[in-house]
Amino acid sequence: MTALPTDPAANLLRLLRCPSVTPAEGGALDELCAMVEPLGFAVRRPVFCEPGTPDVENLLARRGTGGAHLCFAGHTDVVPPGAEADWRHPPFSGAVEGGEMFGRGAVDMKGGIACFVAAVARLEVAGRLPEGRISLLITGDEEGPAVNGTVKLLDFAEAAGERFDACLVGEPTNPAALGDMIKIGRRGSLSGRLALIGRQGHVAYPHLADNPMRRLAGVLDALHHPPLDGGSEAFQPSNLEVTAVDTGNPATNVVPARVAVAFNVRFNDRWTPEALRAELVRRIEAALGGAPYEIAWRAPVSDVFVTAAGPLTEALSQAVEAVTGRRPDLSTSGGTSDARFIKNHCPVVEFGLVGATMHMANERVALSDLETLTAIYETFVARWFAAQS
Amino acid sequence: MTALPTDPAANLLRLLRCPSVTPAEGGALDELCAMVEPLGFAVRRPVFCEPGTPDVENLLARRGTGGAHLCFAGHTDVVPPGAEADWRHPPFSGAVEGGEMFGRGAVDMKGGIACFVAAVARLEVAGRLPEGRISLLITGDEEGPAVNGTVKLLDFAEAAGERFDACLVGEPTNPAALGDMIKIGRRGSLSGRLALIGRQGHVAYPHLADNPMRRLAGVLDALHHPPLDGGSEAFQPSNLEVTAVDTGNPATNVVPARVAVAFNVRFNDRWTPEALRAELVRRIEAALGGAPYEIAWRAPVSDVFVTAAGPLTEALSQAVEAVTGRRPDLSTSGGTSDARFIKNHCPVVEFGLVGATMHMANERVALSDLETLTAIYETFVARWFAAQS
Repeated sequence: MTALPTDPAANLLRLLRCPSVTPAEGGALDELCAMVEPLGFAVRRPVFCEPGTPDVENLLARRGTGGAHLCFAGHTDVVPPGAEADWRHPPFSGAVEGGEMFGRGAVDMKGGIACFVAAVARLEVAGRLPEGRISLLITGDEEGPAVNGTVKLLDFAEAAGERFDACLVGEPTNPAALGDMIKIGRRGSLSGRLALIGRQGHVAYPHLADNPMRRLAGVLDALHHPPLDGGSEAFQPSNLEVTAVDTGNPATNVVPARVAVAFNVRFNDRWTPEALRAELVRRIEAALGGAPYEIAWRAPVSDVFVTAAGPLTEALSQAVEAVTGRRPDLSTSGGTSDARFIKNHCPVVEFGLVGATMHMANERVALSDLETLTAIYETFVARWFAAQS
Repeated sequence: MTALPTDPAANLLRLLRCPSVTPAEGGALDELCAMVEPLGFAVRRPVFCEPGTPDVENLLARRGTGGAHLCFAGHTDVVPPGAEADWRHPPFSGAVEGGEMFGRGAVDMKGGIACFVAAVARLEVAGRLPEGRISLLITGDEEGPAVNGTVKLLDFAEAAGERFDACLVGEPTNPAALGDMIKIGRRGSLSGRLALIGRQGHVAYPHLADNPMRRLAGVLDALHHPPLDGGSEAFQPSNLEVTAVDTGNPATNVVPARVAVAFNVRFNDRWTPEALRAELVRRIEAALGGAPYEIAWRAPVSDVFVTAAGPLTEALSQAVEAVTGRRPDLSTSGGTSDARFIKNHCPVVEFGLVGATMHMANERVALSDLETLTAIYETFVARWFAAQS
């Protein structure tokens, strides 16, 4: 009989050695398959396609045929390692030094997957695996365009009759130490591209031209001030960043006809996307005082969401506290994640490793953190199912 | 005997039919040669070269061997005609409609050359051509990079022992009607490229990044306000135009590390380039409050100049007034011209046709203006030489 994958470090090493730089599968889903099939998971590996984007392999695996249904979601694709010279150990080696395992994806988020699999295996070995269903929803398109990944995998699962009662996403949610933070929601994201329109001309005859640059400072001020809000009960204040201003005018003697301003807003539950768009248009028009402009809103718009307190958040918080002795923050900070898609299907929370080195050279995880997270996941699974019965 | 080129419209037609789009000679200098050699001009046609720029043909012609030396400067190259469909007549046809001759270069500035040649021819025919020397300094690189044109032609003339006592540039200086304006100087031109430097990051974690866009509005305000000056006796106020702001950041979720601001100042004689650079740096640093930036100043810097009142400005003003009945403004407005190079060699003024259609589709000149300008040039040449003796 195959040994069950009870050791999270061994599981992670197998995954880290696969160069699954998005969108490449890189052997990572094969390894995951080989780990979970001995645990009784039935695996499906749909490949999703879309014109203009790379084909992506995904994995949906279920253990159990009835009862409460818990989903663990994540991804095996990783961001590129960058210059290998910046790494103390090769990025797909899984080398261990000073109690830490190095590799791209160590915390984001092959490590989370390795721990969840180990948690299920330990429950199985101990004969404590609850009645009910556990599914793994693992994509290879989280770090890429996110087109052929979780969104389609959720539709695929639904079409196959799978209904999840709750979902845990294994993204690295802890800023500094295991137990810091559970994510129970995410801010929304809205991107716009504004063009200020003037009239081209020669710099020596500015009175014959209309330089939109003279209105740029006022528009930037209006976008930045006053603050959009002061935050809400569950969320930090909404925030706007101007990400680009571009003119594309190489001539030093020409007054440009237009200038484009790109911005992104991370917004909280005091706004709907519609209300936010209206507020920004109001500010822009007030700053422009009738001068012409164009504005386009970029897809996708991620709506804000928050998972209400309930059995899911309670089981996870209690598991974290039972293992670490710390009560985690229930946070909605940070960027978007695939949880924004999952929340349309079932309650969703996120908890994983410490994210400090994610996306950086020398991404790494403490071996002790792998043990701790495995224990947390083990406790969480047991408690969540216990709360369902 | 060849008929002398006393008819400015006939002269212009010959020049207009040559497609001398910069830097092409297009036959225009050949035609000019054929006009002026019968008037006794000895013609040289140096070709100037420089790595990275097109070779350009130029013309230096002199009549007379001693005495006061008047130079007429101009160019036979023209800007591209643009879409021919926008023209009522083909741009190299010289077609006449409603008393106007159409063609690229009609006013900028084949027309000015045609009139000056006609003026000299009429003086010759009338036996009134003064003792002394008249030179033509005609380039094919005024509308292009201006590298293989007037600058090198002036050096070439100096090396050949030519010394000019005064120079008239035949650029179209009149905004609306012949007699409006003589140009006696030009503002300087200074271009800079400023980079505001921050720290890249993710838009969802702005506290970990430093978005230079948050300082952009303040810097733009500081460049624009307060006005650099209120003008001077001979000059309009100095003016700064921001010509480009560029980030080059296509990602909507990334806080950019830097943003570049390009600007151009047209400055008057209240500034030296050095003092202007210092003032702009002072404003930028005050707005940035210690935040990092880089600044680069672009070559070439055109210095401000003004030609003092004297025999040259007087002879030209009187000629304009004698022919048109109007006293022209002695102006320093508008863009730069090759006069900025000539002023290092001798006093220089500029007077030509009406510039309203220059660089536009359907560039054209009233036939009556050609007659008037020829009469003005004729009077000017006679008066200037008279004042020298």
